[in-house]
Amino acid sequence: MATMKDVAKEAGVAVGTVSKVINNIPVKPETKVLVEEAIKKLKYEPNVYARGLKINKTNTVAVILPTIWHPFFSELAYNIEKCLREVGMKMILCNSEKNQQSEIEYISMAKQNKMDGIIAITYSNIDEYVSEKIPFVSIDRYFSKDITYISSDNFQGGKLAAEKLIEAGCKNIAYIGRGSKIDNATRKRKEGFISYCTENNINYSICELLGSANEFEILLDEFIEENFKEKIKIDGVFAVTDRHALDFIKRLENINVNVPKDVQVIGFDGSRSFSQDEFKISTIRQPVELMAKKSVEALINIIEDKPLEKKVILPINFIKGYTTK
Amino acid sequence: MATMKDVAKEAGVAVGTVSKVINNIPVKPETKVLVEEAIKKLKYEPNVYARGLKINKTNTVAVILPTIWHPFFSELAYNIEKCLREVGMKMILCNSEKNQQSEIEYISMAKQNKMDGIIAITYSNIDEYVSEKIPFVSIDRYFSKDITYISSDNFQGGKLAAEKLIEAGCKNIAYIGRGSKIDNATRKRKEGFISYCTENNINYSICELLGSANEFEILLDEFIEENFKEKIKIDGVFAVTDRHALDFIKRLENINVNVPKDVQVIGFDGSRSFSQDEFKISTIRQPVELMAKKSVEALINIIEDKPLEKKVILPINFIKGYTTK
Repeated sequence: MATMKDVAKEAGVAVGTVSKVINNIPVKPETKVLVEEAIKKLKYEPNVYARGLKINKTNTVAVILPTIWHPFFSELAYNIEKCLREVGMKMILCNSEKNQQSEIEYISMAKQNKMDGIIAITYSNIDEYVSEKIPFVSIDRYFSKDITYISSDNFQGGKLAAEKLIEAGCKNIAYIGRGSKIDNATRKRKEGFISYCTENNINYSICELLGSANEFEILLDEFIEENFKEKIKIDGVFAVTDRHALDFIKRLENINVNVPKDVQVIGFDGSRSFSQDEFKISTIRQPVELMAKKSVEALINIIEDKPLEKKVILPINFIKGYTTK
Repeated sequence: MATMKDVAKEAGVAVGTVSKVINNIPVKPETKVLVEEAIKKLKYEPNVYARGLKINKTNTVAVILPTIWHPFFSELAYNIEKCLREVGMKMILCNSEKNQQSEIEYISMAKQNKMDGIIAITYSNIDEYVSEKIPFVSIDRYFSKDITYISSDNFQGGKLAAEKLIEAGCKNIAYIGRGSKIDNATRKRKEGFISYCTENNINYSICELLGSANEFEILLDEFIEENFKEKIKIDGVFAVTDRHALDFIKRLENINVNVPKDVQVIGFDGSRSFSQDEFKISTIRQPVELMAKKSVEALINIIEDKPLEKKVILPINFIKGYTTK
């Protein structure tokens, strides 16, 4: 295999000059061409790994998500990888499955491997591990004023959902959702929803559980029994995510309640399974592409020690699907 | 920050002993406990990155896919990451978007960064770049007898789809699909379909294009015009992927042809958008978890220079959904 020395000889330049070209340090344009041609001819492949160690950069970023097997997270990871690639960085993908031990292990792995930084959506109590030791950008969860935080405007999203249900003619609306026991940005969706209802004197109900999926199922069954079975008491529902919305719609269909005729439903996320997929249900769409872009930008600013906004809240919008009138 | 020397001092052992514990080389159990306690107390984080360089392993694997933003690939990547993590390896995720230049760049990046290997689903003419220089496992595409290749039994899948359509009462069946100009395993789906029809003297049609999506749209429009508009001439369709099947079903619905009453449809992949999602359409399910497992196993065998099967074909199965009777 060709070495840097071979390349220098072939190009008729010093080894240091080859090194400059590889490391993108400016040299005379004609010299650059000579070196690049020699690299091509000899099929030289620089050992970037060793280089990374030398200049203390590995150009790798750990992206910690609950699971990549989910439309929202796969769209987000797709876009993060795209942004990282544009700046010559690689994405190490980590599926934490919302497990605290996994989240901690991945953070520790990133530090041990001298990765350049971490972008994470976390759901556990890992505050003490999110240190200043490694550049860290948190999506959707606020840790402290020192940790950079990127999020959709969940509060505004909740308000907008309530507003859209009312505009579509609903009189009695409800919020349904299961959440993590750890505070994260999704809770603000409910707060926004309540805020709109309170400001406008609108009747509302809440069907929420911060706990296990099984417990939530039981709660939801009771809620449906009470409000939709004998008589439809609630005619508009805002669900904390699209998945919750879809589950809920299926439950209503099972008891022959028609969406959107009898009950209108709005979800949150605006996930699609692939890039050409259609939006189906009415939803509050998160600006996934922008979230990815801002997360990568923030991380690079931290790495390069540049000033940055520690809290970035991004605008959401409403997408009308078949579940509202 | 604590060094290995600090840990050795704290534990009352030699530096070499600490190194052994970190590298999982057996030491006396009581010594191991001492070292581990010292590591914990001092919050020592070994520089695995430098270690990787030393023993010439980075414990990273590049996984090259067309896009992670797709149910099949996100399920596959999820499972690959899980298998890699179990053996202490990390996944670098690469979205090639089926672009030849990107595929080549990722392969070159993996070599330059001294990654331990590559697992790839590729769609371009990159044969000359897939060298023996780096351990390489190809999913769904055969390169040469030297390159390890993992695939579902696409041929059998095509046969099974035809068989299931006939069993469900279809008399005139068709295969529809768009494919890459580069030979890959998906072509075998059509071959299996034809093989079943020929062996059993069954009438069949083919609506296939190896080329652009736009050209295929035109072909498909003609095919529908001809076979479903005035009179339904074809009562069973096998589509090369679930996505093709879903597109096709929508087109039939637009001209008021009912699935499965008038026309039955079977897809291929058995993708779900997330782990608790349901199977919806009738489909030939690929054993995604097993594909991931076998790919990682094969890669590790190549890395460790152990004997291995160069060609692994995995069993598929039929899942009945709402699109067949």
